[in-house]
Amino acid sequence: MKKANRYSWPSMKVTKLEIYRKGMKRMKKYVYFFGGGKAEGEAHMRNLLGGKGANLAEMTNLGIPVPPGFTITTEVCTAYYENNEQWPEGLMEQVLENVKKLEETLGMEFGSNTNPLLVSVRSGARVSMPGMMDTVLNLGINDEAVEGLAKKTNNPRFAWDAYRRFCQMFGDVVLGVEHSKFEEILQEVKDKRGVKLDNELEVEDLKELVQKYKAMVKEEIGQDFPTDPLEQLKMAINAVFSSWNNPRAITYRKINDIPGDWGTAVNVQAMVFGNMGENSGTGVAFTRDPSTGENVYYGEYLRDAQGEDVVAGIRTPSPISKLKEEMPEVYKELTEIFDKLENHYRDMQDVEFTIQQGKLYMLQTRSGKRTAAAAVRIAVEMVREGLITKEEALLRVDPAQLDQLLHPRLDPSVKVEPIAKGLAASPGAASGAVVFDSDEAAEAGERGEKVILVRNETSPDDIHGMATAQGILTARGGMTSHAAVVARGMGKCCVAGCEAIKVDEVNNQFTVGDIVVKKGDIITINGSTGEVMLGEIPTIAPELSGDFQELMSWADEVRSLAVRTNADTPQDAKQAKEFGAQGIGLCRTEHMFFASERLPFVQQMILAENKEERQAALDKLLPFQREDFLGIFKEMAGMPVTVRLLDPPLHEFLPKREELMVEIAKLEAAGTNSAELAEKKELLAKVNNLHEMNPMLGHRGCRLGVTYPEVYAMQVRAIMEAACQLTKEGIKVIPEIMIPLVGHVNELSILKEVAQAEAKAVMDEQGVEVSYTIGTMIELPRAALTADEIAKEAEFFSFGTNDLTQTTFGFSRDDVEGKFLPYYLDNNILEKNPFAVLDQEGVGQLVKIGVERGRSTRPNLKTGICGEHGGEPSSVDFCHRAGLDYVSCSPFRVPIARLAAAQAELNNPRKKCKTCGCCQN
Amino acid sequence: MKKANRYSWPSMKVTKLEIYRKGMKRMKKYVYFFGGGKAEGEAHMRNLLGGKGANLAEMTNLGIPVPPGFTITTEVCTAYYENNEQWPEGLMEQVLENVKKLEETLGMEFGSNTNPLLVSVRSGARVSMPGMMDTVLNLGINDEAVEGLAKKTNNPRFAWDAYRRFCQMFGDVVLGVEHSKFEEILQEVKDKRGVKLDNELEVEDLKELVQKYKAMVKEEIGQDFPTDPLEQLKMAINAVFSSWNNPRAITYRKINDIPGDWGTAVNVQAMVFGNMGENSGTGVAFTRDPSTGENVYYGEYLRDAQGEDVVAGIRTPSPISKLKEEMPEVYKELTEIFDKLENHYRDMQDVEFTIQQGKLYMLQTRSGKRTAAAAVRIAVEMVREGLITKEEALLRVDPAQLDQLLHPRLDPSVKVEPIAKGLAASPGAASGAVVFDSDEAAEAGERGEKVILVRNETSPDDIHGMATAQGILTARGGMTSHAAVVARGMGKCCVAGCEAIKVDEVNNQFTVGDIVVKKGDIITINGSTGEVMLGEIPTIAPELSGDFQELMSWADEVRSLAVRTNADTPQDAKQAKEFGAQGIGLCRTEHMFFASERLPFVQQMILAENKEERQAALDKLLPFQREDFLGIFKEMAGMPVTVRLLDPPLHEFLPKREELMVEIAKLEAAGTNSAELAEKKELLAKVNNLHEMNPMLGHRGCRLGVTYPEVYAMQVRAIMEAACQLTKEGIKVIPEIMIPLVGHVNELSILKEVAQAEAKAVMDEQGVEVSYTIGTMIELPRAALTADEIAKEAEFFSFGTNDLTQTTFGFSRDDVEGKFLPYYLDNNILEKNPFAVLDQEGVGQLVKIGVERGRSTRPNLKTGICGEHGGEPSSVDFCHRAGLDYVSCSPFRVPIARLAAAQAELNNPRKKCKTCGCCQN
Repeated sequence: MKKANRYSWPSMKVTKLEIYRKGMKRMKKYVYFFGGGKAEGEAHMRNLLGGKGANLAEMTNLGIPVPPGFTITTEVCTAYYENNEQWPEGLMEQVLENVKKLEETLGMEFGSNTNPLLVSVRSGARVSMPGMMDTVLNLGINDEAVEGLAKKTNNPRFAWDAYRRFCQMFGDVVLGVEHSKFEEILQEVKDKRGVKLDNELEVEDLKELVQKYKAMVKEEIGQDFPTDPLEQLKMAINAVFSSWNNPRAITYRKINDIPGDWGTAVNVQAMVFGNMGENSGTGVAFTRDPSTGENVYYGEYLRDAQGEDVVAGIRTPSPISKLKEEMPEVYKELTEIFDKLENHYRDMQDVEFTIQQGKLYMLQTRSGKRTAAAAVRIAVEMVREGLITKEEALLRVDPAQLDQLLHPRLDPSVKVEPIAKGLAASPGAASGAVVFDSDEAAEAGERGEKVILVRNETSPDDIHGMATAQGILTARGGMTSHAAVVARGMGKCCVAGCEAIKVDEVNNQFTVGDIVVKKGDIITINGSTGEVMLGEIPTIAPELSGDFQELMSWADEVRSLAVRTNADTPQDAKQAKEFGAQGIGLCRTEHMFFASERLPFVQQMILAENKEERQAALDKLLPFQREDFLGIFKEMAGMPVTVRLLDPPLHEFLPKREELMVEIAKLEAAGTNSAELAEKKELLAKVNNLHEMNPMLGHRGCRLGVTYPEVYAMQVRAIMEAACQLTKEGIKVIPEIMIPLVGHVNELSILKEVAQAEAKAVMDEQGVEVSYTIGTMIELPRAALTADEIAKEAEFFSFGTNDLTQTTFGFSRDDVEGKFLPYYLDNNILEKNPFAVLDQEGVGQLVKIGVERGRSTRPNLKTGICGEHGGEPSSVDFCHRAGLDYVSCSPFRVPIARLAAAQAELNNPRKKCKTCGCCQN
Repeated sequence: MKKANRYSWPSMKVTKLEIYRKGMKRMKKYVYFFGGGKAEGEAHMRNLLGGKGANLAEMTNLGIPVPPGFTITTEVCTAYYENNEQWPEGLMEQVLENVKKLEETLGMEFGSNTNPLLVSVRSGARVSMPGMMDTVLNLGINDEAVEGLAKKTNNPRFAWDAYRRFCQMFGDVVLGVEHSKFEEILQEVKDKRGVKLDNELEVEDLKELVQKYKAMVKEEIGQDFPTDPLEQLKMAINAVFSSWNNPRAITYRKINDIPGDWGTAVNVQAMVFGNMGENSGTGVAFTRDPSTGENVYYGEYLRDAQGEDVVAGIRTPSPISKLKEEMPEVYKELTEIFDKLENHYRDMQDVEFTIQQGKLYMLQTRSGKRTAAAAVRIAVEMVREGLITKEEALLRVDPAQLDQLLHPRLDPSVKVEPIAKGLAASPGAASGAVVFDSDEAAEAGERGEKVILVRNETSPDDIHGMATAQGILTARGGMTSHAAVVARGMGKCCVAGCEAIKVDEVNNQFTVGDIVVKKGDIITINGSTGEVMLGEIPTIAPELSGDFQELMSWADEVRSLAVRTNADTPQDAKQAKEFGAQGIGLCRTEHMFFASERLPFVQQMILAENKEERQAALDKLLPFQREDFLGIFKEMAGMPVTVRLLDPPLHEFLPKREELMVEIAKLEAAGTNSAELAEKKELLAKVNNLHEMNPMLGHRGCRLGVTYPEVYAMQVRAIMEAACQLTKEGIKVIPEIMIPLVGHVNELSILKEVAQAEAKAVMDEQGVEVSYTIGTMIELPRAALTADEIAKEAEFFSFGTNDLTQTTFGFSRDDVEGKFLPYYLDNNILEKNPFAVLDQEGVGQLVKIGVERGRSTRPNLKTGICGEHGGEPSSVDFCHRAGLDYVSCSPFRVPIARLAAAQAELNNPRKKCKTCGCCQN
């Protein structure tokens, strides 16, 4: 290669180059240099320079030692794809200018046989996509430069090892030759030499390797291995652009919601080497402990090594504190840089560094990933340190991550061996003896024994067993199956849809392959991962530290969205209140109907032949319901409690139709006991009468209330009798009576009249006034679409987004999760499970329509959301933007919702002023 | 009573009257006079004067003899209710003025003892509400006037009979004394006299009756019977106003969609008497035959009688032609009036008349109700006669009524005795031998025997039996149950949900109370009324007269909305084409899967353990499907055919889960035949695997296509192979491939790719190009809400309003109709069954949103509606206004839709010009 034209591109004509040079002033800036204590870029230019490039520039400007280099912007990548994979005009010129600048800065030269410049070429998108795209190290080496490197370092083995590594990496990443081909040759040479490890090879072996690699590559691709450093560079840059659209990067982007047109930047940076002897090394560190959040330096390093050696895991790295002993000067400089970076970025940093012959270089800095506990502690402590504001602290913690802090979890120090894996349906972990029957679970629970309830699937009859079990494991059902929803509501861990287990209730055992687990055997389930283990594995308790409480209090100061809870018992209400709930948004009365001492009366009510019989049964249920409400109202004194009147279809309270049919067939076959047979047949007739093809769309909710108004009247009586009694005792009760499943305003008008009449009767009897409201759930598309009409009658709306999602999508929660929904999610047909994350595009439209139209006829309409979405951060954010007054979620999600609501307010403020009170929601 | 102040109201002060008089000029006109050949009102003032009042005025102006009188406007009724049931200022004055005018016109006087004026007081709303409100006759009579009447008529018996009748009617209607009290006294007097009939009573008896009536009334209401004619009048007017809000009027209005704030007018008219001897009489008539539409005078009359005598039915009236003999002059005058009225109103009239001592008076005229056959004939003939335009003719026929003409019906001359009544689920009538099994029905059908299939409910397995049966009777299910929908689709009569019958399939019989109907017994069902009769009752064939065809051709000229049909077989397609269908809007492929020679392969496909097995089964189904499409495409040559790919959940093709469970229990109890048991158990496992709680919201539609793309690929192949083959034969095929149940555009994108690839493969193999389109059903709220996204992929939308209604309301068609929907309809919670009549308020919003958003991304998007609503007139009108391109309905509803579409265009024109073609849909 002649020096005169070494900056002209091999394939380029000089005339064209001249034209480019003349046009330079008007050209867009595609390349940003950093080095020599000054950089053209800055940290805030992340979108243009990628995360890595922006931070390298920022560190350079901060005077932190960073090997110099330059960044090709993300816009180039986009232009490259728009331009049929060609470089945009002027890029070539700018790259050449910057290479020259790099050489001048370092006093080195590409391909020099005395002082050769080697560079790394790395991708760097706006957000980190770890391991998804390609990297080339040691670029610039060739037969001349290797000699220069050997001479300069006085270490031929190092130089040839660098060359060998480059051939391998460039051959694989840029030239597309399979990695295994290089490994084969390497193994051959090692075998010949009779050595096991790479670093046992001698200089001559390495030279042989380089020759063999090049020969093999030529055979594979039909061309010589490129030796011109500039050609190598161009090819490597293109390889990085191409890797933006490799299949694993595309998949990663889909999963992480990263737009494909963002593109990646390319960082070309001078190489530094941590493998140049005992005064060299490489390491990674966090400026605080990412696991606990403690304000200590945290990290590890390896002497005489490159990054890939750390990954290989052959030698054990030393903790960062060891560096203080081994290289006190470097340690001092490094920790000063840690402090500088943390103060500058005002966040805990995750850094990479290399020490080359006693000199420290920083290769990367970025905000460090951390556990929930660490996130909370770091955020709160940084506020105390004056580093960030409370508002910033609130935005630093991922609400979803808080879930980790709210349930017992397996001791992470214990290694587990799962025998099966299901859905992580409700977080936390639990151990206990296997039981297959809810009655047994309830009995064992009363005896103080720990049990895990194992069922094919659960139904409302299992509530009592679920309530006393430590955890629930089901073979069928999805993330919002009955088991999963109820378990999350109870804050109880649950693994659902664990299809690997075969439940044999008859023989009281389940099997996983050859493993048989019998009743009474101890198992452990991890509801945070879906794993099922044999035996008992120790757990650690939820960490509700003082920092956590403090952060929550800041959230409460900020947010405008209230947070309530879904609770059906005084226990749930108490738990939720401890977690900061401001009321009950959904108290489901049907759960109260399943208790064993009540069910007979419920069945009597259903089987009643006439109104009188039905009323007699209702009269027996009344005292129970009143007791329920007394407990809940007392617990929630001074806070609103939304009570939903009976919702599920009545057949849920009766034996299952097909089971009755089988029993009858058996009795008939046996030919005995005709009284029992007749009774069963009569029951079957009634069950058949109530049988529905699609009970979710059938005779339930207000449709029951309309056809059996006496049932709702009894419930209203129970509510109001409890409210009156407590009012007399001086306890403030704020009952909100909610009529479910309204689709037409007429349904609500009729039932409002029933409820008002009963409430008035109770208050007259008791001689006390209780202020109460009557509202409805908006859980059918028609209700949302006609919300203006419905709001004429309703004093509040609670969006039942579980049911609304079912009807808007036409998905049955009980069915789709086990059938096609997993397939839809795996194949990105749906991005998110709409039962977990509110579908803003479809269901969200109906929520917005409902709020707007409802307020058009009743401006002070109170609006909230109950159901699973109320505790999911992106859904909470949506609710805030849609202008709802509150969200309601299961007790264990209340802190998540509080934080999410605060973040929503910070991102889209809707409180105009906090002091005058004029615009408070 | 002194004459000087007889026009002052008894309860009124003169000073106030003076004030009224002064204010008169500025007063609103509340009262309209008619009489003496001139009226203040006209026919077009129906809203103000009510139908009766407006027409009395119009007839007066036409010079037709009408007893004079005046009309108090409907606005007064409204004001009366708004004003706490008080008369508005000035009304009293105007009534008095008009009474005076009436007296002057007739030369008679209220309460006169020589020439007394008697009046009738009748209600008259904008639309006729027959029998709903109150009437008082002979008002103005008292002890003086009766003498005057006796003197004037020289007929004391007549006078006292009039008095007696007045006391009775006024006492009942105005004073609120129970009718039976009068009847008791009448019976007493008759018993005393030893006579049976009222008209056998003598003058003295009648006088005694009047005395006794008055005494009784005084005792009942504690006041004297009012004798002042003006007081009588005021009270009678108030009674008419009050009757507007009596319970039966309110119910009638609700049923007939009449707003409560319309109010009724009150007509006060001089009495004429048809019971003044042999030269008197009364009658009703139609200007044409209301049953056949023939242009002949039609009606009957009774000599020496009043209207009430006709109703009483003691004497048989004579046909109107008899009048020609009996009173030729009167007949001549009457028929001249008929012609005058018909020419004037340009419609067939229904009139009432009275002849008083040889003088003819017309008491009412209005457009006459008529049968469908008459409506069509009259409309078409009136166009021929030049009386009305074609457009007017189209508006004269009620599309829904056409249904009568499109099915065989029971001979109306035969009197039937129903043993039970169910829902009128599919019109027409049929007789046949009872069978309880679809296979038997099919076999009998093949032998040419007529059978009625009787089932508790039908399922898709019954299709073959339903296809051959004459009619279907089910004990369960509603208007859109499987039986009803399929029957309507087949144009076969069906009585559904006939709960009075108990089907005992085991003993091959059904019972209704004590009646037992065994297999083979002949029954007749009337799908137009829901009635079930024993034995065979003769039917008459559909009347598709030339007039009907002609009217349809006019409809086709006018309408802009195309009409297609839902058809799954070539037979259906042929039938629909004969009825004028312009294509197939919905061809359901699943019906093709149920045929007995195919079902095994369908089951094989479902039970396949892997893709290869499944493909093998599909390969066997392919030729069948291709044959289906060959037949249909051939029949519909040159017209579009929308084929919906497989929609129902797969378990519908397998045995029922609970039946399998019972069979297994029985086999286990018997303890034998272990091979069969094992097989059943294996099948049950598979069925359990496919079992869903809410199949309507489960794994069906495109969700099947996404998870088993090979099924859809086979169907597309069958469609395209058939299309290619016919194209080669020179037959034009326009296939539209429809992907059902799309909720997210991604579903459609994936399946569109599958379909396009398969279509291309077939066309390449066959070496022929067929132009086809791919679209989707919009049948989920989410699809409508995200129609802009979906239209990026879909070339057409077909609104599946059956399913859309299910999800928008959260109603399962299979369930709600048997449970709460009838209650909702009976109690006016819902005005209409939303599965029969499109719910414009809720579901309609989604249709509009879908059309608008779909066209926002694809302006030339073709849009239509399939499903039950496509043949329902008000829904067709909605579709027209929503801008759809076509409606599709079952073959037998095609003519209804054509007429409804024409009316929609006439009411809301959307064709800007018919000639340039620029704006044709």
